[in-house]
Amino acid sequence: MSSVILYASKQIFKRALKNDDELDTDPDVSTPDEDPLEDTNPVENEIFSSWALFILLFLLCSALWSSYFLQQRRIKAIHETVLSIFYGMIVGLIIRISPGHYIQDAVKFNLGYFFNILLPPIILNSGYELHQANFFRNLGSILTFAIPGTFISALVLGIILYIWTALGLDGVSLEFVDALAVGATLSATDPVTILSIFNAYKVDPKLYTIIFGESLLNDAISIVMFETCQKFHGHPVKFSSFFEGIGLFLMTFTISTIIGILIGILVALILKHSHIRRYPQIETCLVLLFAYESYFFSNGAHMSGIVSLLFCGITLKHYAYFNMSRRTQIATKYIFQLLAQLSENFIFIYLGLSLFTEVELVFKPLLIIVTFILICVARWSAVFPLSRFLNFLYKARFEKFNNRLASNGGISSQSLPDEIGHSYQMMIFWAGLRGAVGVALAMGIQGDAKWTLLATVLVVVVLTVILFGGTTASMLEILGIKIGCVDENDNSDDEFDIEAPQLPLNVMGNRKLQQPANNVRYQSGVYNDDSIRSRTGSNVSLSSIKASNDSSASVNDVDEFNTDGVDDLFPNSSGNPPIDTSNPETAHAAAVALANNSSSGVLGAFLSAEEHAKWFTRFDEQVLKPVLLDKLPNQHKRNDNGNSDGDV
Amino acid sequence: MSSVILYASKQIFKRALKNDDELDTDPDVSTPDEDPLEDTNPVENEIFSSWALFILLFLLCSALWSSYFLQQRRIKAIHETVLSIFYGMIVGLIIRISPGHYIQDAVKFNLGYFFNILLPPIILNSGYELHQANFFRNLGSILTFAIPGTFISALVLGIILYIWTALGLDGVSLEFVDALAVGATLSATDPVTILSIFNAYKVDPKLYTIIFGESLLNDAISIVMFETCQKFHGHPVKFSSFFEGIGLFLMTFTISTIIGILIGILVALILKHSHIRRYPQIETCLVLLFAYESYFFSNGAHMSGIVSLLFCGITLKHYAYFNMSRRTQIATKYIFQLLAQLSENFIFIYLGLSLFTEVELVFKPLLIIVTFILICVARWSAVFPLSRFLNFLYKARFEKFNNRLASNGGISSQSLPDEIGHSYQMMIFWAGLRGAVGVALAMGIQGDAKWTLLATVLVVVVLTVILFGGTTASMLEILGIKIGCVDENDNSDDEFDIEAPQLPLNVMGNRKLQQPANNVRYQSGVYNDDSIRSRTGSNVSLSSIKASNDSSASVNDVDEFNTDGVDDLFPNSSGNPPIDTSNPETAHAAAVALANNSSSGVLGAFLSAEEHAKWFTRFDEQVLKPVLLDKLPNQHKRNDNGNSDGDV
Repeated sequence: MSSVILYASKQIFKRALKNDDELDTDPDVSTPDEDPLEDTNPVENEIFSSWALFILLFLLCSALWSSYFLQQRRIKAIHETVLSIFYGMIVGLIIRISPGHYIQDAVKFNLGYFFNILLPPIILNSGYELHQANFFRNLGSILTFAIPGTFISALVLGIILYIWTALGLDGVSLEFVDALAVGATLSATDPVTILSIFNAYKVDPKLYTIIFGESLLNDAISIVMFETCQKFHGHPVKFSSFFEGIGLFLMTFTISTIIGILIGILVALILKHSHIRRYPQIETCLVLLFAYESYFFSNGAHMSGIVSLLFCGITLKHYAYFNMSRRTQIATKYIFQLLAQLSENFIFIYLGLSLFTEVELVFKPLLIIVTFILICVARWSAVFPLSRFLNFLYKARFEKFNNRLASNGGISSQSLPDEIGHSYQMMIFWAGLRGAVGVALAMGIQGDAKWTLLATVLVVVVLTVILFGGTTASMLEILGIKIGCVDENDNSDDEFDIEAPQLPLNVMGNRKLQQPANNVRYQSGVYNDDSIRSRTGSNVSLSSIKASNDSSASVNDVDEFNTDGVDDLFPNSSGNPPIDTSNPETAHAAAVALANNSSSGVLGAFLSAEEHAKWFTRFDEQVLKPVLLDKLPNQHKRNDNGNSDGDV
Repeated sequence: MSSVILYASKQIFKRALKNDDELDTDPDVSTPDEDPLEDTNPVENEIFSSWALFILLFLLCSALWSSYFLQQRRIKAIHETVLSIFYGMIVGLIIRISPGHYIQDAVKFNLGYFFNILLPPIILNSGYELHQANFFRNLGSILTFAIPGTFISALVLGIILYIWTALGLDGVSLEFVDALAVGATLSATDPVTILSIFNAYKVDPKLYTIIFGESLLNDAISIVMFETCQKFHGHPVKFSSFFEGIGLFLMTFTISTIIGILIGILVALILKHSHIRRYPQIETCLVLLFAYESYFFSNGAHMSGIVSLLFCGITLKHYAYFNMSRRTQIATKYIFQLLAQLSENFIFIYLGLSLFTEVELVFKPLLIIVTFILICVARWSAVFPLSRFLNFLYKARFEKFNNRLASNGGISSQSLPDEIGHSYQMMIFWAGLRGAVGVALAMGIQGDAKWTLLATVLVVVVLTVILFGGTTASMLEILGIKIGCVDENDNSDDEFDIEAPQLPLNVMGNRKLQQPANNVRYQSGVYNDDSIRSRTGSNVSLSSIKASNDSSASVNDVDEFNTDGVDDLFPNSSGNPPIDTSNPETAHAAAVALANNSSSGVLGAFLSAEEHAKWFTRFDEQVLKPVLLDKLPNQHKRNDNGNSDGDV
């Protein structure tokens, strides 16, 4: 037996260490019709890919364990993402200097793996876990930073980079469109990094939502810009191309959103009109598959899979979630979270690894330094002017609102805080780390300078994560931004879901029936009360929302009907307007609240809702929910169409 | 706007339909230093792989939907696996005849994907969901069919195939080792197929366990045999190689098992001695990752990943499960189930697709027919002699047992039923469908006949699934085998877990303290009672187990301490032997039960436990559980070593 073991261990080591370049000593001559590329035995390849995967999973374990350790010891100076990158770099270095290139090839950054395996779970989970009220309340700011912001950043970066390379100090020559492509590549701030860091620190939801939303959406803009630039590679650039690009982007964004929402609605309808909830295992699979379908369909149709998947996730949570069996509700949450967590950690490791395992890279230190400075300049010139623009817009609106108040007999004009204060502007600037999306795009760069540019992008991305990511905690402290905020979603957290006895849905329905009216009264009271008592003032919007949620969210997360939609502040379905602006007392309370705030979530919500959200909320309550949901929260609106009774 | 949409849709269709062979009309001349293999734009490739994934996911959705539909309408004539293969074939045909080879390449059967992505979740879930008591009770039969069975099957198939090809009717010439390799390839009965079909029909647990256990383990044997044969490719075969092969296999099997168990124990210890349960998201990830590590480590070390992962899953469920936070317990269950379900469905689709998307295949109808007949012959010559051998062994044991009973003053010898009755033998033969493991192995075949053999294996595998799989239901009926058995595991099913209020663990501990003694008394009573009342007799072992479980399994699945281990029939920890053979009354009852049974689960368990399980059960209760578990079911044995108090 021992001789067998000896023999086998020899075999193992021989094979594990064998370089593919060394020919097998076996006289393997009788294989004339084999593909020359497949001259290694598939079983051998299998062994090497097993080792590669073993190493990657080991790194993932280490990263997760470090994350646990850091959280356990409450160490905030070092962040897990930075550690992940370092682990990746160390192992990448070891793989690089060890003999054999098979494992090195296997752990290389693969564009397909990134876009098809690693990215979707993160986006899907973002959409599914998104605090919808916050997101839609800040949609204006998000879109402003995402769309014109990315354009400005890419243009600034592209133009200066083009000028720099034209000087010829690095021996790199770039076409203008290629420089713009690099600009687009490096303008995609990364949802992964931001999510991970901000979630860990539990930053003020408003700031969190703006930065997170921007970073999610600007990937889409970057990708479209990059593809547009690539199309003009080797062609003369016309001025009209600029507008063509903008048109293309707007179309992409709109269609992608529609695709995502339609697929989400489709799932809600399928769940409603079938008995599939009796087979929760199949149900869970189908929900996951449909969400992925939206991503791949959108990508395949040259749209933005990220945008589709994000909106599909949001729609799933807003409608389909309430048609699922209880098991599927829990299973989808857990599964999306697990997949997202694994992907996030993996992406950082992958980035660290790539620095050493991509052998063709050409590193030009000067170019890297210049590019790094340039991305700061580009982000600066996008964030600060746009913030000022938003503040200006907001002031103009406030004037209008104030005038209306005054004409209704209310109080007169107040001094106004900024929509996005200086510390927030600084943080948005600081949070502009670049991530794996940039690297993935950079792999598509064509031309002579391909490997130089890829190396530059890779190093710059890693640098931003290490420098900006590693100092985010200190920066939050320096800027005095509130961290450690309890997310309102925590009320419906998972431990709670499981441990709480589940109330039957129709009981929910009855409770819900009485809820909206209560909510309104409670809410307007809170505005008055809370804002006067608040001293820091910067999170009144948060606390008032929390207070209004506390009354309803303490039993079960079916209550997310109330807390998760855009409708929680404006329960129009109950008939009364939420805060009657013609009532001087309420209006006065609101205005006082505003005056005492440095942040303006209340007013922001107030104004945007007044103009945008009302019609959608009414449409949602009166048309969409009755059509899409199986059991309505308001039972008197329940449509008994006969085939929606298939409950377990 | 409409012109933009028009432009974009033109772009989409142009790109989607574009054949890679057709050159882009853009003058793409400025890329001299690019890899000739990467002449397509990565972004373009991305689009095509998106379509490929979209198609695959769409097929998966269709298969799952069909599965729901079939279950909903209670259609048993057609099975979902057969439908999955057909869907795969139809879409494979469409892809084959449509222009462009990129999607065709992308959906090809990929060895690496199969072994690294699709197979592990299925095996892990099998180990995690395995009914441990059943598995260990039938371990003897399982190992007999798995090890010598696969050897016999591969030898018979290999020898006859070698003789057939030597006749030269097909123009295929094979070395003897290649013929043996094909034999090994086609001797791997597939866990996927069996699991899927038998789970759907809820076959008698004993038969289910034997067939399922065999099919899980014989993959390992096939792989080792195949690799051994491949090693001798081009060499003269010596007789000693035969024994070398056997030695290699035994070593592989043992080491793989040890790796799996050690990693399972490692996870249990980590969970016990850390506070990681406070971070259930990280905990869930780590459990999953460690399980995968066992698979890849084992594969990388030239051991059998399947065996390691299976035993890792079993160990995780037996020890680590009880150290997890509640959220992780539920999350791991759901996640393993989801991944396994998706993989299972996907593998069938993949097989169907491969028939048309593997372009190099050479189909030889005569060879295919001969091989199909041969696998039936080979399986026949493995199953029936070995069953007779098992029955013989069992009879010999029974004589011994009976003699001992007689010498103790009990009743005299009885006529004896078979361990594996004829209908069971027939079913084991019939359930020998081949699956994707065979196809994956066949991709490693070397030599001139590679593509012919691969085509043959592929067609034969699909044929077995369609013919045997499609007729399993009718066969079960014809043979009169009990289907629709309620799995004991169902008591701890997920819906129940969630909806039930969770009792604190120390309450569990107290209840548990009184359980074993009750169990013993109840059980021996059941033997007496149930066996006299039973008419069919073929599932007394099942019903008595169920009865004994019913007393404990109705509250919570922490009770799996009792129902899931090998220890449920023999709670030696309570001090009294379970069924006292020196007590004539109990012994009489047991003997009557045996005499009235055609099946013999009771006796099998009785004998094997008497000889094998006792020492392990005692060791498990007295050493392993105190060391590995955080909270012991028996509180008086609890070791308060201070660092196990990290509860959420």
